[in-house]
Amino acid sequence: MKNTPLAIDVIETKTSNIDSVDFDNLVFGNVFADHMMECDYHDGQWQNPTIKPYGPIQLDPSAKVFHYGQAIFEGMKAFKDDDDQVWLFRPVANIERFNKSSQRLAIPEFPQDVFLEGLEALLNLDRDWIKKGFGNSLYIRPFVIATEKGVSASPSKSYKFMIICSPAKSYYSGEVRVFFADKFSRAADGGVGYAKAAGNYGAQFYPTNLAKEEGYQQIVWTDANSHEYLEEAGTMNIFFRVGDKLITAPTSDRILDGVTRKSVLTLAEELGIEAEVRRIKVSEIVEAAEKGELKEIFGSGTAATINPVRGFGNKGKKYELPQLEDSYASLLKQKLMEIQYNKAEDKFGWRYAVKKN
Amino acid sequence: MKNTPLAIDVIETKTSNIDSVDFDNLVFGNVFADHMMECDYHDGQWQNPTIKPYGPIQLDPSAKVFHYGQAIFEGMKAFKDDDDQVWLFRPVANIERFNKSSQRLAIPEFPQDVFLEGLEALLNLDRDWIKKGFGNSLYIRPFVIATEKGVSASPSKSYKFMIICSPAKSYYSGEVRVFFADKFSRAADGGVGYAKAAGNYGAQFYPTNLAKEEGYQQIVWTDANSHEYLEEAGTMNIFFRVGDKLITAPTSDRILDGVTRKSVLTLAEELGIEAEVRRIKVSEIVEAAEKGELKEIFGSGTAATINPVRGFGNKGKKYELPQLEDSYASLLKQKLMEIQYNKAEDKFGWRYAVKKN
Repeated sequence: MKNTPLAIDVIETKTSNIDSVDFDNLVFGNVFADHMMECDYHDGQWQNPTIKPYGPIQLDPSAKVFHYGQAIFEGMKAFKDDDDQVWLFRPVANIERFNKSSQRLAIPEFPQDVFLEGLEALLNLDRDWIKKGFGNSLYIRPFVIATEKGVSASPSKSYKFMIICSPAKSYYSGEVRVFFADKFSRAADGGVGYAKAAGNYGAQFYPTNLAKEEGYQQIVWTDANSHEYLEEAGTMNIFFRVGDKLITAPTSDRILDGVTRKSVLTLAEELGIEAEVRRIKVSEIVEAAEKGELKEIFGSGTAATINPVRGFGNKGKKYELPQLEDSYASLLKQKLMEIQYNKAEDKFGWRYAVKKN
Repeated sequence: MKNTPLAIDVIETKTSNIDSVDFDNLVFGNVFADHMMECDYHDGQWQNPTIKPYGPIQLDPSAKVFHYGQAIFEGMKAFKDDDDQVWLFRPVANIERFNKSSQRLAIPEFPQDVFLEGLEALLNLDRDWIKKGFGNSLYIRPFVIATEKGVSASPSKSYKFMIICSPAKSYYSGEVRVFFADKFSRAADGGVGYAKAAGNYGAQFYPTNLAKEEGYQQIVWTDANSHEYLEEAGTMNIFFRVGDKLITAPTSDRILDGVTRKSVLTLAEELGIEAEVRRIKVSEIVEAAEKGELKEIFGSGTAATINPVRGFGNKGKKYELPQLEDSYASLLKQKLMEIQYNKAEDKFGWRYAVKKN
């Protein structure tokens, strides 16, 4: 056990699991690196941040996370360049959003410096889990759960912050087709849609299962009031290319302010791609598809990176998208990854070099 | 260890905690009876229901409940009459709603017979935790959480069903005033508002904290589209008495179909109290309050029973309600409790006698 300058205790594992992992055949998010970070909140403060071997946690069955879904998370990725330097991508944007989500769920904010120092220490310990090469990354999952005992519906007085890491290739293993929501909804105005609240995700599973039965992997959520406007895909923000113009919905209290979404908009501008951030009518996209003007749909997100959508369904009708030689999705993904993997100049200051211990 | 006819394993505790509990000074939901029921779902079925000593559970940090809020619960109560018979109140209604919530959260339904047999065995073991006398009860919290390891946003393949029990007196310890939501929302059309989904509760904590700062204990949620219609209070359905007429909102995919709510409507009919189930405008209630026609507001719920509301706030203005000699809330609560505690005839077949082992 040793103390880093920020008093993060580090307990190293005696036995690494890395040799049991087939890094060429990873299923997203089901294998975890050797270590995790843990920090508990009680008596009004975050206490004793610790990095220790990955392993189970023990909770009372009445812990509030189980009953009241007081839990939020983030998704981040670490990349390794050819010189073995490990990079994060816009980590402060994720940490800021982490705390924005926490605030909406009445969870105490986590100190940004402890978060980043802890994450860097964790990545240094598990640096062998980060493989080189485009498409390889270590997916980072910071989260907070409410741990106080008690089944009364009020904010917890104790919490557990954790960071776990999972080596990743792609999020979606096959082609992605999406269904435009016409009955179910993801978020209400004045609700928690903009937060990465745990409950936002479980609530999508049933409608998504119904969509899967019709051959769609994801739902593009529409506004709950009218189902006339396209919003986000639940695990991704969503972009439409009509003609040569890129369109995405504005963020709101229903739509996640995606870090990849923001980055795509900046890269589009740099590449001279016209991009509009405005409300998008379902009817507009259907019409564009029928006229042959809808050239692409793609999702953006940390886990999914930039994910092309092959087709969509709306009111019982299926639409397929053309396969383009010069797709914006491929171009933007290439540009994004060049920055993430330190293959291109970092004009926007997005890369963050993980300090070696 | 012994097997009941339904193959529920029972492991009795060696040391009861009952002597450490001050039953006259209970805080709602923070002390638990000696035993709990547990049943795990894997390989496509619920397996090995077990009753065992109350204690912590162990989960992987990547368990889906922590990340995706795939979790639902119910609230029930057991009552003891003067002859030491233990009663449940409309348990099948709760079990049915439990499975309705499960379905919406893509959780496999739990078999009704195992639920009820297990609960009865549990109540027999912990029958000393159920105290006699109006207002005393054992609050029962059945719940299911997603336990599969993995941080990809898809339904879990494994689950844990549990029942834990907590001796209870009243849910709210002081007077309750409510705030009519005008900015935040609880549920979207097409969302999970009608389900007892864990995420529905955590999402209310922050707005409720803001309301508390203004002197309100609870929020009465309004429709997310316009905030013009009063819906439910998050932990209670809500009733308004204007003149001598009782009004409550219809259930919908945003509003919980409360068992106590249903029972109140039936009892009101029996008592000759005119009751309307229809959408209720905020403006109508404010106007009635200003004219002196708003006589009562009360909430109904298993935990809260029937809870009078002393006043409400709307758009920065506070309203106090008169204190009536002949309140509907008191009358309905009395009638309800007489049935629950076996002090009156059970015309509607609501009482369920817990079979002794």
